[in-house]
Amino acid sequence: MSRRRDVDVPDLVGRSRAGEARAVARLISLVEDESPLLREVMAALAPYAGNAQVVGITGSPGVGKSTSTSALVGELRTQGKRVGVLAVDPSSPFSGGALLGDRVRMQDHALDADVYIRSMASRGHLGGLAWTTPQALRVLDVAGCDVILVETVGVGQSEIEVAGLADTTIVLLAPGMGDGIQAAKAGILEIGDLYVVNKADRDGADQVRRDLRTMLALAERPDSAWTPPILKTVAQSGLGIDEVAAEIERHRAWLRASGELEVRRTRRARDEIEAIAVTSLRKRWGDVHGRSELDGLAAAVAAGESDPYAAADELLEGL
Amino acid sequence: MSRRRDVDVPDLVGRSRAGEARAVARLISLVEDESPLLREVMAALAPYAGNAQVVGITGSPGVGKSTSTSALVGELRTQGKRVGVLAVDPSSPFSGGALLGDRVRMQDHALDADVYIRSMASRGHLGGLAWTTPQALRVLDVAGCDVILVETVGVGQSEIEVAGLADTTIVLLAPGMGDGIQAAKAGILEIGDLYVVNKADRDGADQVRRDLRTMLALAERPDSAWTPPILKTVAQSGLGIDEVAAEIERHRAWLRASGELEVRRTRRARDEIEAIAVTSLRKRWGDVHGRSELDGLAAAVAAGESDPYAAADELLEGL
Repeated sequence: MSRRRDVDVPDLVGRSRAGEARAVARLISLVEDESPLLREVMAALAPYAGNAQVVGITGSPGVGKSTSTSALVGELRTQGKRVGVLAVDPSSPFSGGALLGDRVRMQDHALDADVYIRSMASRGHLGGLAWTTPQALRVLDVAGCDVILVETVGVGQSEIEVAGLADTTIVLLAPGMGDGIQAAKAGILEIGDLYVVNKADRDGADQVRRDLRTMLALAERPDSAWTPPILKTVAQSGLGIDEVAAEIERHRAWLRASGELEVRRTRRARDEIEAIAVTSLRKRWGDVHGRSELDGLAAAVAAGESDPYAAADELLEGL
Repeated sequence: MSRRRDVDVPDLVGRSRAGEARAVARLISLVEDESPLLREVMAALAPYAGNAQVVGITGSPGVGKSTSTSALVGELRTQGKRVGVLAVDPSSPFSGGALLGDRVRMQDHALDADVYIRSMASRGHLGGLAWTTPQALRVLDVAGCDVILVETVGVGQSEIEVAGLADTTIVLLAPGMGDGIQAAKAGILEIGDLYVVNKADRDGADQVRRDLRTMLALAERPDSAWTPPILKTVAQSGLGIDEVAAEIERHRAWLRASGELEVRRTRRARDEIEAIAVTSLRKRWGDVHGRSELDGLAAAVAAGESDPYAAADELLEGL
């Protein structure tokens, strides 16, 4: 902790704004470590944020998320855009370790100074993703990224959370994975701004597309103004990736014109503020200092001597 | 709301304690609806809870969770146990609708008065699962269930959350699903008390078992005293299900003898209390009543006029 106090935040922020990769990496490490300096960092970044388009990339394991992300980075780079990639691993709260096997493909871009690639484990309990990811996005945003691709490592619920953090959400599917049903289960029919059937050179790709079209037609979607396109790609060879990039751009224009961008960003800020406030309360309640008031209340509830509502009341009275 | 005020909570709790299925169903509906009556219900249930062994059943889609759950219900019934089944669908916070296609198999047990089967959508935002699931478990517990099987519909993070709610967690795998890597990714190596390789009559089952054994040997596990067994089943035909039931029983005995049961239940109570307290704060902050202080703060953060920490401070000062 004492070592961290030596960090010169204004200098670090200044160098990050200038796009210096080491300074960016350092700031994201502070986010990952939930450093007490983040308060100062975020205050310094706030006025400069908001330029980057945050693109969430979701899909079941095996649909080709990493390959698609990498191909998309390549495409965006040919357009001269500065790109950030944030791979979030919220699936292992117990170990806190991000498994980065999939990330190997990203080494195609590892030497490109206009591509920032970062894996981040989200160690937090509940709300970890909601709290740390927006902060990392803010760092990449202020560092001058035009587009930030957010990919979750792992499966499930976290993907829906990532969609909540993104301006534009891409849902990837692939033939032969029973995706139709999985898609419906995971609620992804409601979150995609773009749908991409990857591995489109395989049998069944057209069927996936047809199924998806049918399901999308049935799904209730909040915005009637944007109709999510269904694209086909072969990410391995790059086929169709240019169209994905074009649709990302078109969605950005729609977000601005419709006012939806502001709506989404305000919602995101709301979640972030709430997550910080709740985390702060949790610390007070004893997430940090061993035995606490909450522990005592929990023991009473576990023993049947109290009920959780009465216990929660006591906890809140202590504020 | 006014209709609900007519509910006679003591009567409903009394009939639930006597095992009346309609009363149990009614109480769980109150949980699902996040009824204001729950405060009274939980206070009335508290002294009678704690008998049931909560068994979480997790695994990727396609490993046979529903079939295994149904087979296990059958086995536990032959032992004369009263069984609860709670199928939680936390994967679709946007629609709030539980997809119950998989549940059809459970109809084998639908006419058995000593089996309570309930699907529950968890509508809540963050913390929905943490909040409502323990309440539904408490209802089934007080209704006299000896074992409650909790199965998540859907994938991912929610499974780890369910493990946090269970006394005993069963991780299901199956050959031919690339489960090895998925298991590692999803952090399930750290959460299983029992591992079951289902579809053990298929090619590759022994390989899955070997891989799992290797990975478990490498994984850091918090409890050194319990070594998770790796079992093989063919749930479709019931093969090996008796052994699973026996291991569940053995784990229960270990939980009691080691003191781990109390540890787990206190932790569960802690999460539940915290979730209720946080939900209560969220309501104050404006989750319920349209435009609120939080919305104003979020707009300022989205516009770069404030930062999330300063906004969170303001929010907490308002308490």
